[in-house]
Amino acid sequence: MSYDEPCMEMTLYLHDILYDYSNSTSNSTASLIVAAAIFLLILSCTATVAHGRRFVRSYDEPCKEMRLYFHDILYDYSNSTANSTSAAVTKPTALSTAVSKSGYFFGRMVVFNDPMTEGKALPPSLEETAVRGQGLYLYDKKEDYNAWFAFSIVFNSTAHRGTLNLMGADPLAEKTRDISVVGGTGDFFMSRGVATLRTDTFEGFTYFRLQMDIKLYECYVL
Amino acid sequence: MSYDEPCMEMTLYLHDILYDYSNSTSNSTASLIVAAAIFLLILSCTATVAHGRRFVRSYDEPCKEMRLYFHDILYDYSNSTANSTSAAVTKPTALSTAVSKSGYFFGRMVVFNDPMTEGKALPPSLEETAVRGQGLYLYDKKEDYNAWFAFSIVFNSTAHRGTLNLMGADPLAEKTRDISVVGGTGDFFMSRGVATLRTDTFEGFTYFRLQMDIKLYECYVL
Amino acid sequence: MSYDEPCMEMTLYLHDILYDYSNSTSNSTASLIVAAAIFLLILSCTATVAHGRRFVRSYDEPCKEMRLYFHDILYDYSNSTANSTSAAVTKPTALSTAVSKSGYFFGRMVVFNDPMTEGKALPPSLEETAVRGQGLYLYDKKEDYNAWFAFSIVFNSTAHRGTLNLMGADPLAEKTRDISVVGGTGDFFMSRGVATLRTDTFEGFTYFRLQMDIKLYECYVL
Repeated sequence: MSYDEPCMEMTLYLHDILYDYSNSTSNSTASLIVAAAIFLLILSCTATVAHGRRFVRSYDEPCKEMRLYFHDILYDYSNSTANSTSAAVTKPTALSTAVSKSGYFFGRMVVFNDPMTEGKALPPSLEETAVRGQGLYLYDKKEDYNAWFAFSIVFNSTAHRGTLNLMGADPLAEKTRDISVVGGTGDFFMSRGVATLRTDTFEGFTYFRLQMDIKLYECYVL
Repeated sequence: MSYDEPCMEMTLYLHDILYDYSNSTSNSTASLIVAAAIFLLILSCTATVAHGRRFVRSYDEPCKEMRLYFHDILYDYSNSTANSTSAAVTKPTALSTAVSKSGYFFGRMVVFNDPMTEGKALPPSLEETAVRGQGLYLYDKKEDYNAWFAFSIVFNSTAHRGTLNLMGADPLAEKTRDISVVGGTGDFFMSRGVATLRTDTFEGFTYFRLQMDIKLYECYVL
Repeated sequence: MSYDEPCMEMTLYLHDILYDYSNSTSNSTASLIVAAAIFLLILSCTATVAHGRRFVRSYDEPCKEMRLYFHDILYDYSNSTANSTSAAVTKPTALSTAVSKSGYFFGRMVVFNDPMTEGKALPPSLEETAVRGQGLYLYDKKEDYNAWFAFSIVFNSTAHRGTLNLMGADPLAEKTRDISVVGGTGDFFMSRGVATLRTDTFEGFTYFRLQMDIKLYECYVL
């Protein structure tokens, strides 16, 4: 957290801009003209306004961070419809089928409304989970699993109300993948940042869990 | 509008950094060393550069706001193809059908090119409307209507030329829903903000109208 | 590049805030009270912090720019599956078919994993191209070609590692179209900007090449 630390330093140069009132009004010979004073200012980044919101930009330390687990339970025509939280919305593409019947799902698009939790355990009541990931992902590689996400995290709890909006590439072959937090609303008004994804578990085609480490570097704080 | 008001205040501390020229060059005993002057600066946020663009960040008052109505006329196989401005692009998902035949369209994806207007009335010529919403929405809840949007607002009038790009969750059960303005081009170069959606009317499955209150809090102004 | 130039100028007004130490402690009559000194500050925008990242906002000159060519090779059921880099994932919509059999593909959604190159030539090995565009585009006009993009540019070379995330409208009838760079990761950590698209070539339905001029106006620089 960078709230109590300076988040910006600036060097300001002033050139002969202080008018010398004393020369003509006194016998003092002191020259007040500052030829080239160098001001090293440490901005505390507290920018208060009438209604109280302030902007925090941090460079290396996030102004807000959290870890959430993303549970995707894909309906496969046989598992529980009550538990399923996502569904493929497209048929296998001709290209995907031509390349390989089992395939890596090139072109498959999945719509999800997935529970997100602070711990790894699946919540007892999926429908009432207070944090949800809502949006779509798609697969876009012929010879491997490679995904792309665009979705919102919707918070609806006493701790947080609001949304974060994210998008980015998810190349599953990499151990960690970074996507962008491109905006936010409510408690996350106008936020931006980066979310790091890790595959925490992958159980066949009907369940995977991602660890999402969300770090915001631009915050508008009330 | 925050153009004429201060949009940031800062308190800067200066510590003994003014060199005292007078001590050694005159008989004045005046000490110019400012021990700990506290500067309360009111930044006017006017940041002019050679070519003329300036950046405005506002905290509580948007630097730009507008209200637009979004008209979605979904083709349902029987209504006018000339008037229709959107179409479902996916078949009902297996999950959606398994849960309920009439359903809440879990997984349905709709592509739209919808007229957007300042008043509530549908424009006489849908095709020539100067402001359009272009992109997609999808439904992502099994037991209720819950949508997610990603789209551009394309302005092509004498008043505005350019685009705003938006994404976010649209839980229809809430009276108002906030989505993010994540970027802009042309007159809205690099803008960011929040758009608040209200369902203004909902007529069966072939027409709904959303009121969108768009507030930009980051503007690059020419 | 604006790194060496001032990227922000501010005029600060100070009102009677310098305490005059000399009045009571010396016989000098010089008044140090600055009645209304006007400080014209030129901020150099170098904001260094412990770990070394700094933020650069530029108004008219991008802090980073590059030109890339985007090659889309659509599988049409007959061309090479090895070379194809994109696939339609939806069937023709009822609206699209009703309007015109050949049509402008209203509602067609295409998933792509397209090579992006610095030169115009298609790379010899499509799969190993170090810069790729991954995501989706869709067509959204009944009586013309009009597209909408949401995708990531994934850099995986010695020159750059990281991603840029983009979205925006692509009305093909316009000579140039601007879309938003809404975020970035890795070397492009937290970047924002604008990408200008030009259709460089269009060969039937199976190949088109876009010229993308990417200009970032917000950079976090290490």
